Amino acid sequence: MKQAIVARADLGMGKGKLAAQVAHASLSAVEDTGTRSEKQWKGGGQKKIVLKANSEKKLFQLADEAERDGIPHAVVRDAGHTQLEPGTVTCIAIGPDSDENIDRITGSLSLY
Amino acid sequence: MKQAIVARADLGMGKGKLAAQVAHASLSAVEDTGTRSEKQWKGGGQKKIVLKANSEKKLFQLADEAERDGIPHAVVRDAGHTQLEPGTVTCIAIGPDSDENIDRITGSLSLY
Repeated sequence: MKQAIVARADLGMGKGKLAAQVAHASLSAVEDTGTRSEKQWKGGGQKKIVLKANSEKKLFQLADEAERDGIPHAVVRDAGHTQLEPGTVTCIAIGPDSDENIDRITGSLSLY
Repeated sequence: MKQAIVARADLGMGKGKLAAQVAHASLSAVEDTGTRSEKQWKGGGQKKIVLKANSEKKLFQLADEAERDGIPHAVVRDAGHTQLEPGTVTCIAIGPDSDENIDRITGSLSLY
């Protein structure tokens, strides 16, 4: 079980900003996850990987694929208080789900 | 309502590594939070700030202060699969709680 969070590398987010956005996505996708999967994931140390993409379009493609496969996911839009324009799509969390399901969608992306 | 996540800047964590650790801390502290506070925080957009500290000692001091004040918190130790030695303390999430309570403990720290 793992969760992948894919964040946009093209926005020039600072480290702290990126971390806050990733945390937001992670938490939101966990809320979209069934209790059994959530418990399995947490029991295994709540494994997370942070990956990068370079456009909003790519994040929406990933969201479509996760939706199609019935995998929990959450797209985050920044409130725009700092650094970014309000409503900017910054990242998507996919899972927790089985490693196989996560890899099928995110396997070609690089580590952030 | 807000949550502060304080991460160690002295470990040289990469951006993705840092983001994963912060997300881990955030989620763990939310689990330590009462339902009412959690709902209030989420209703307000689950505000998060990522701050920095420069030692393990500082993180434990913050944990002691949060414990003393009865504020939910979670210290994260890295499993050590990548970049860090197993068991390395990387960050602490404090809250969600009122802005005043969070600021009392973390108000002197810089944004990451």
